Amino acid sequence: MGKIDQRLAELGIELPAAVKPVANYVPWVKSGSLVFVAGQIPVKDGKVMYAGKPTSVGFGAEAAKLCTINILAQLRDACDGNLDRVVRVVKLVGFVAANNQDVAIPQVINGASDFLVDVFGEKGKHARSSVGVSELPLNATVEIEAIVEIT
Amino acid sequence: MGKIDQRLAELGIELPAAVKPVANYVPWVKSGSLVFVAGQIPVKDGKVMYAGKPTSVGFGAEAAKLCTINILAQLRDACDGNLDRVVRVVKLVGFVAANNQDVAIPQVINGASDFLVDVFGEKGKHARSSVGVSELPLNATVEIEAIVEIT
Amino acid sequence: MGKIDQRLAELGIELPAAVKPVANYVPWVKSGSLVFVAGQIPVKDGKVMYAGKPTSVGFGAEAAKLCTINILAQLRDACDGNLDRVVRVVKLVGFVAANNQDVAIPQVINGASDFLVDVFGEKGKHARSSVGVSELPLNATVEIEAIVEIT
Repeated sequence: MGKIDQRLAELGIELPAAVKPVANYVPWVKSGSLVFVAGQIPVKDGKVMYAGKPTSVGFGAEAAKLCTINILAQLRDACDGNLDRVVRVVKLVGFVAANNQDVAIPQVINGASDFLVDVFGEKGKHARSSVGVSELPLNATVEIEAIVEIT
Repeated sequence: MGKIDQRLAELGIELPAAVKPVANYVPWVKSGSLVFVAGQIPVKDGKVMYAGKPTSVGFGAEAAKLCTINILAQLRDACDGNLDRVVRVVKLVGFVAANNQDVAIPQVINGASDFLVDVFGEKGKHARSSVGVSELPLNATVEIEAIVEIT
Repeated sequence: MGKIDQRLAELGIELPAAVKPVANYVPWVKSGSLVFVAGQIPVKDGKVMYAGKPTSVGFGAEAAKLCTINILAQLRDACDGNLDRVVRVVKLVGFVAANNQDVAIPQVINGASDFLVDVFGEKGKHARSSVGVSELPLNATVEIEAIVEIT
């Protein structure tokens, strides 16, 4: 069992199986040492768990965390099952379905950033952008994409 | 005539000349083996062909396809005319001018993804994010940017 | 004093100190020769200087320029203080808080592109995407992220 798998177990996180999209794209592509992970939404067992505009920072941050769990599931697949191969989480873009300043967008995306640092420590610290957008696929509350350097 | 040029001919696609923006930016930059293609909108002969919010998935997907034709025109330029140098389409971000769930955003961007796989086969399968945004340049319906690995 | 520092002085630009975000992310990550700079907003001395939707192209372009000054502050930090190490500004994404076509989004982001070419010349010419989004962090008018190749 790898260190990151142990850390996930300590945090009580069980990564889902990496789901392949049923379309002409793939959930991740590796080029050189960078893995580009497709935008992930807060889906669990095939169902969107957080839909519509975030009603509170907590709701949005939980959505962002679930997006990030799905990113890690894809990343584990890109690492042939061994998340210890992660060198650095390089970059996130967090899109939040929001338009009226009801909730603070950066705090919503902190749900992703905090989780990554919980799991990876310093290697989890990334550059990021967070923006409010008018609509996300399947009416999801948050969508997050990632670039990760692996060995 | 290269394989990809042949395939484009089979599909009845004639790539336009790569248009240089009349501003202080360029349509693509190569860094290492990655070509970063600037966001392309559904322009043909200097005119936006798909404007406003998509009125149907079909309308949006056609817009996405035209964006992708323009991406290929720029990419061909980045490849010194030889699209057979494409190793992998790495990543797309698809922005759709949409805010009321009238059309499914992922299905709109499938217009780009399906076309890329039609042209490049497995090499055309990319990671992607698709989001709905409030407004695009020149009131375009769709804007798509790409990262492509070439030799 | 480096060439780029001289050029900034000629332009009357004093870069602020690179501000570290008070959250679990960082303002830039270097991977290989690429620096990924987190989305920067038009903040000066800790205060958002351009908020809300842009009321004119000039207002938006000034906001975009200030975002870019903040990008350069982070980039200088990534270059250990020596901006002459910049090989090429590779890519920008410019997000503008806009939804009713009051102002032309590309012209707003030209405030960033023009400034980069003023500072870096040909090396400052980048690929870019510009999009209108519903809301930005701290109600900022513009947010810009960058990828830059350095030695």
